[in-house]
Amino acid sequence: MLDKLGLMSTFPPTDAQRVDLSNSHKYPQMRWSLQHVAELHPSHNIRHGNAPVAVLPVTNKPIGSFVFEDDKGKKTNIDEWFNSSYSDAIVVLHKGHIVYERYDNQMKPWSPHLLFSMTKSFTGLMAAQLAQDGKIDPNALVTQYVPELAGSAWGDMKVRDVMDMTGAVRFREVYTDPTTEIFGYSWASGMLPLPPGYLGKTNIYDFLKTLQKEGEHGAGFVYRTVHSEVLGWIVSRATNKHWADLMSENIWQKLGMEEDAYVMVDSVGTPLQGAGLNATARDLARFGEMLRRGGEFNGKRIFDKAVLDDTFVKGGDREKFKAGGMPFRAGYSYRNQWWMLHNADGAYEAAGIHGQMIHVNPAAEMVVVKLASHPVAGAGFTHAMTLRAWAALAQAVRQ
Amino acid sequence: MLDKLGLMSTFPPTDAQRVDLSNSHKYPQMRWSLQHVAELHPSHNIRHGNAPVAVLPVTNKPIGSFVFEDDKGKKTNIDEWFNSSYSDAIVVLHKGHIVYERYDNQMKPWSPHLLFSMTKSFTGLMAAQLAQDGKIDPNALVTQYVPELAGSAWGDMKVRDVMDMTGAVRFREVYTDPTTEIFGYSWASGMLPLPPGYLGKTNIYDFLKTLQKEGEHGAGFVYRTVHSEVLGWIVSRATNKHWADLMSENIWQKLGMEEDAYVMVDSVGTPLQGAGLNATARDLARFGEMLRRGGEFNGKRIFDKAVLDDTFVKGGDREKFKAGGMPFRAGYSYRNQWWMLHNADGAYEAAGIHGQMIHVNPAAEMVVVKLASHPVAGAGFTHAMTLRAWAALAQAVRQ
Repeated sequence: MLDKLGLMSTFPPTDAQRVDLSNSHKYPQMRWSLQHVAELHPSHNIRHGNAPVAVLPVTNKPIGSFVFEDDKGKKTNIDEWFNSSYSDAIVVLHKGHIVYERYDNQMKPWSPHLLFSMTKSFTGLMAAQLAQDGKIDPNALVTQYVPELAGSAWGDMKVRDVMDMTGAVRFREVYTDPTTEIFGYSWASGMLPLPPGYLGKTNIYDFLKTLQKEGEHGAGFVYRTVHSEVLGWIVSRATNKHWADLMSENIWQKLGMEEDAYVMVDSVGTPLQGAGLNATARDLARFGEMLRRGGEFNGKRIFDKAVLDDTFVKGGDREKFKAGGMPFRAGYSYRNQWWMLHNADGAYEAAGIHGQMIHVNPAAEMVVVKLASHPVAGAGFTHAMTLRAWAALAQAVRQ
Repeated sequence: MLDKLGLMSTFPPTDAQRVDLSNSHKYPQMRWSLQHVAELHPSHNIRHGNAPVAVLPVTNKPIGSFVFEDDKGKKTNIDEWFNSSYSDAIVVLHKGHIVYERYDNQMKPWSPHLLFSMTKSFTGLMAAQLAQDGKIDPNALVTQYVPELAGSAWGDMKVRDVMDMTGAVRFREVYTDPTTEIFGYSWASGMLPLPPGYLGKTNIYDFLKTLQKEGEHGAGFVYRTVHSEVLGWIVSRATNKHWADLMSENIWQKLGMEEDAYVMVDSVGTPLQGAGLNATARDLARFGEMLRRGGEFNGKRIFDKAVLDDTFVKGGDREKFKAGGMPFRAGYSYRNQWWMLHNADGAYEAAGIHGQMIHVNPAAEMVVVKLASHPVAGAGFTHAMTLRAWAALAQAVRQ
């Protein structure tokens, strides 16, 4: 697909094939940019170090040809789903073995891919572990860690409401209205180039201070990327370390990763802790497998089992989740920045716009990583089909 | 030193400790930014891959305490020189063994450091090897590879005059006069942020096309970074590959490097082939050791011996070199973007502003990598002392 598009393939790229900050978030340029974020934005490396790679054994199974019924009642198979969903990569692990791995759109096993909101799930679990270790108190006010937020929506909010996105903050996302807060976030974080004469905030922390309360904290789940940025700020204050260094020391150097990861940063080095992580499909599979095994992998403990059980088994508040306005995720809950399906298999997932997913199915002993550059951002458009595919994969790996 | 400065050490950094594009090129902020270029600028990764690291054996020698006379006639030693020259790292190899290795200013063995014009030496040797392979003709006109340069200084210039910087191009570097070409280069390449209302070129290739001839090609050596950018353009046209991918496939993946390297890119992904490479001290030592061994290292041939002999043994034209206005490098020549000392030991070096150096001394079987963030950019200020230190090191490793 990208070969056909020819984006950024000549020296210099032709005007038609050029991807830069003016179009990198648009389709089809996005098909290139999601694998090349560091070439467009400042970024902070997440080093994996020189420890031996934790080899994932390969036991190929005929997963791609597995037939299932799509959400329209039509017969399809896994390979067709891979193709039709603008996939860049998929890795399926069963009992820790790679049973299916495919790449497209010029992606390679060593290509880091933008994960968007899957980033939140790393921030959330690190915060939950710090809470377990007594370094963050979920019942404390946010201002105990970040006094600068006193005049903002977080001024009277507890850390728990940040972790589970039940804090009430006015943050409108109307992509046709540049006065809504999503634009302020995109400019301050460097995701979008500054418009001429811009006088607003130029880093994430300064922007967060401007956001105001709307509603009651704890009343219901409302999905807001800015909560993840605040949570990351709390994590850095509690540890006195940069998020990228924590990711490297606590996760990337321990799991026997194959490649460095990296995170986008704003103009003063603040990581986009809610949207900016980039990593390879295989390294994400290692992370998912560590979760499936209860927090241990490669001979190392990464998270306490109690932290994972509190997140994935207990899960979040399913009643409060209904307030979030995501009917396509009916029955789900959200806790520590993870999505729990509350299905018979006890599945849970991390998700990012344009098709980024880690899906863990404990009953099927399966981990799926799927990375894509789908032209439609939100999961609402594809999620019914995604759920069909998860069910098909859980059958396919067991056959 | 950096610990004392406290640059970028809190979340967010205080105003006094903040490093961003407005001050990252200034002292003391530069002491931080030379190890954090990717956090400030878009960059293109140079992957080292998963091959085993080529371990450099360690045989410590009392190099640091070796006493010598400095350029003012005063007694000093290697450790004092390290400290007084704002060093971030030094690695000294003797017969392939690390005999002395030191870091300061928060640099670690795994920290990539900006190399400035040492970048040129990589571009130059890759071009020389392509010439050896018959893929670039040094006697051809530049326009055979880059017809876009027809209306510029390079329109009637031969490739050889680009490789050895004997082409005549008007490129003034007056740091107090923004009408001189160095500003256009800094803006187009993204090294400096664009001033308000900027209407000039926004990428390197477009900027190169604007430069005009001044004088006669081949008459004398005149050091111009833009020649290296043109040479990199020729290399990419001859190979149809991005400079960073060539660096990864031909050098970084073969030498058993410990860490990925990376290169700064402009707004459309063009690498700064004359100034933007970042790498660790140890990986640069591996590169230098490969050169000292005649092009082989880690069981792999990287460059033909004929290419290295043509560069380092034959060297450039010492008469033409005199036109370059570098009396502190008396007796030197420049060929394929390397500096040859033409001393009794047959030494040669790569060099970048603010104290970046690979120095190879074949007679002493020694390779020195020294990286620094010296407040003075040009080598003229420090070179007399540097030459003293090279001589002292050549004695020290042999004792």
